[in-house]
Amino acid sequence: MVSLELPSAVMAFNQKPVRAVLLDISGVLKNCVDGKDVAIKGSVDAVNRLKASGMPVRFCTNETTTTRSALVKKLQAIGFKVEEDEVFPPAPATCLILKQRGLRPHLLIHPALEPDFKGMEQKDPNCVVIGDAQESFSYQNMNAAFQTLIALDKPVLISMGQGKYYSEDNKLVLDVGAYKAALEYACGIQAEVVGKPSQAFFLSVLSSMNAKPEETVMVGDDIESDVGGAQKCGMRGVLVRTGKYRPSDEQHPKVKPDSIVDNLAQAVDILLKTNLSSFLSTVAGCSAACLRDAVICGRCYLRTL
Amino acid sequence: MVSLELPSAVMAFNQKPVRAVLLDISGVLKNCVDGKDVAIKGSVDAVNRLKASGMPVRFCTNETTTTRSALVKKLQAIGFKVEEDEVFPPAPATCLILKQRGLRPHLLIHPALEPDFKGMEQKDPNCVVIGDAQESFSYQNMNAAFQTLIALDKPVLISMGQGKYYSEDNKLVLDVGAYKAALEYACGIQAEVVGKPSQAFFLSVLSSMNAKPEETVMVGDDIESDVGGAQKCGMRGVLVRTGKYRPSDEQHPKVKPDSIVDNLAQAVDILLKTNLSSFLSTVAGCSAACLRDAVICGRCYLRTL
Repeated sequence: MVSLELPSAVMAFNQKPVRAVLLDISGVLKNCVDGKDVAIKGSVDAVNRLKASGMPVRFCTNETTTTRSALVKKLQAIGFKVEEDEVFPPAPATCLILKQRGLRPHLLIHPALEPDFKGMEQKDPNCVVIGDAQESFSYQNMNAAFQTLIALDKPVLISMGQGKYYSEDNKLVLDVGAYKAALEYACGIQAEVVGKPSQAFFLSVLSSMNAKPEETVMVGDDIESDVGGAQKCGMRGVLVRTGKYRPSDEQHPKVKPDSIVDNLAQAVDILLKTNLSSFLSTVAGCSAACLRDAVICGRCYLRTL
Repeated sequence: MVSLELPSAVMAFNQKPVRAVLLDISGVLKNCVDGKDVAIKGSVDAVNRLKASGMPVRFCTNETTTTRSALVKKLQAIGFKVEEDEVFPPAPATCLILKQRGLRPHLLIHPALEPDFKGMEQKDPNCVVIGDAQESFSYQNMNAAFQTLIALDKPVLISMGQGKYYSEDNKLVLDVGAYKAALEYACGIQAEVVGKPSQAFFLSVLSSMNAKPEETVMVGDDIESDVGGAQKCGMRGVLVRTGKYRPSDEQHPKVKPDSIVDNLAQAVDILLKTNLSSFLSTVAGCSAACLRDAVICGRCYLRTL
């Protein structure tokens, strides 16, 4: 058996093989410091190592303060090797739903996200779409969204995510979920969530890489949307101690992560090493050198696929 | 029996005698039109008639956009005969609770309400108090309140009322309840409500006039906070079709008003006429003239008390 040298506090999350990985972006890949994106230590390298291992990776985010293309450019600018078709935010999925159902949205979103909704019919709205509007969550804008909803016979509210809060400049700030709750309460309705932890959203991302939930790990800093949401979908959920993480998350009354790690780098260390061990233990004929050096030869690797 | 000439659609709410009345203010006594208070037609006279009948009356309001003294002056300015000790808004009750429990509030309230919290220790806050802050419900202020709460071991949120919305300039606007719901969701907590529909709040108002719930009627335009809240307390709840009233309120899934009336004037008509009938039917020895003219003689009236 290969020596793994894992920190004793870390729970193993890949005793069963992992064949695909979903990564949250904010709080896992990067933080926002003084209004600027900063890569979390070790994360750029961790993504590189994960991709180099041949593991299919998708970036599954509830980011709604910028367009998908701008988000990808920001990630590339701080060193991440990420392409647009690997990144899944809620806005494109929402546009698809609006078109399919003939919905004309009243948008309560961040101004920087508006290009993602270009071309959507917005006159005479028959639903409200909210994202993390940040400064645009003004009293006036909240009233306008409410007035649109309350005037509808059957109010439809689509919320891009339902996060409670996130970390920005080392402070926790309210996320879209709080404002979703406000509109739900005032109108006596339940919003439809597009984005994590929606099962439909997770499954659409998995289908882009033909991955099965039971073979996939989601790594995130949101104990409920990332970890709990992934687990409800049949995936394994790994919580990082970066981003919005708070020690009390480890005693969450309803969600128990499959593993809690210091950061993405540690998650990838465990994933690659233990995954390898898992491969090795099931592969007959791997050489002694292969086992000793904790590297798997190409022949053995291919046999595991 | 005295002829009552009541509109057929009106349900009787005083087949049992009524000995005290609680009146909501906004949407019952007055509306806000173009930023100014305007008495609802017939309401000034209705309050006068109610008081002239000797009926104890209290004004039970969730108003938190102004101090109690300013509220009373505004009501007086548009013709209402109201004194400060008859008006019960949530702020004075909240201050009492804060003092009793040694709480130092972070205030998320309307600037015009601040004088009612003068003298309260606000440094190093150990709770958050929210009212209908209106324009002050900014993204920044909501985040500041959230950050105070989330930093506490046991977050205490006191909400002055929990209304969903109210009518202003013929538009429905979000009330404090929506923002209470936002903070509750983000922090995973339940707020304490001071004001309607809190039972403790209703009972404190009743005790100011030594009234029993079963002998008291609450008249309001909020199907949940006014009507439902009063009924849960053992009072009768009468809904007016003024203020924030919407026709769908009459099909509310949980709250069935004891009566629905067009406005306060009609509620008082019914109250005084039917109350009289109720008195007469239980009073022995009332004169024939007394019965015929639908007025009760002083002797008979006293016997009913």
